[in-house]
Amino acid sequence: MDLLLTYDVDTTTPEGARRLRRVAKLCEGYGLRVQKSVFEIVADEAGLLRLLASMDATIDADSDSIRIYRLPHNGLTSVETRGIAQLQSHRDDLVV
Amino acid sequence: MDLLLTYDVDTTTPEGARRLRRVAKLCEGYGLRVQKSVFEIVADEAGLLRLLASMDATIDADSDSIRIYRLPHNGLTSVETRGIAQLQSHRDDLVV
Repeated sequence: MDLLLTYDVDTTTPEGARRLRRVAKLCEGYGLRVQKSVFEIVADEAGLLRLLASMDATIDADSDSIRIYRLPHNGLTSVETRGIAQLQSHRDDLVV
Repeated sequence: MDLLLTYDVDTTTPEGARRLRRVAKLCEGYGLRVQKSVFEIVADEAGLLRLLASMDATIDADSDSIRIYRLPHNGLTSVETRGIAQLQSHRDDLVV
């Protein structure tokens, strides 16, 4: 399924800056970064559960915010983009 | 329809910082801010077109990035959240 993950990590402390780097690194293992704090992810339910478990172990639940949206089928191929934003290919069969 | 708008505005210049404020203000007229650069929006096609036209007139297309994702029906009510992230009510009939 196509997912969109967005995060706000409180970076007012050195620990926060460290968490931000860890959250980004974790997300890089699951999808493609499309903006500073936005990742497009293709995963199955098991992958999503693994990601959520790792996220729980990484963030500070009292100050950080993680949101994961389920997109429609192939929702990542029909994004309205403006400026330097570009569509990303997530599946090999989309590459011509 | 349920939309998710995310943006990265290049704030390395005073003009960029100004654009960032304008983009945020524009989005506030259409939806609810859920993270620093993420807005949840409920709009029809006409509203989306108006928003895109205003966005085109606001951003620097060579340095800013705007992405708008179409979510499934009621996609804003089934967001996976972690930490301080909370579900938002966008429709009056959802308020008990």
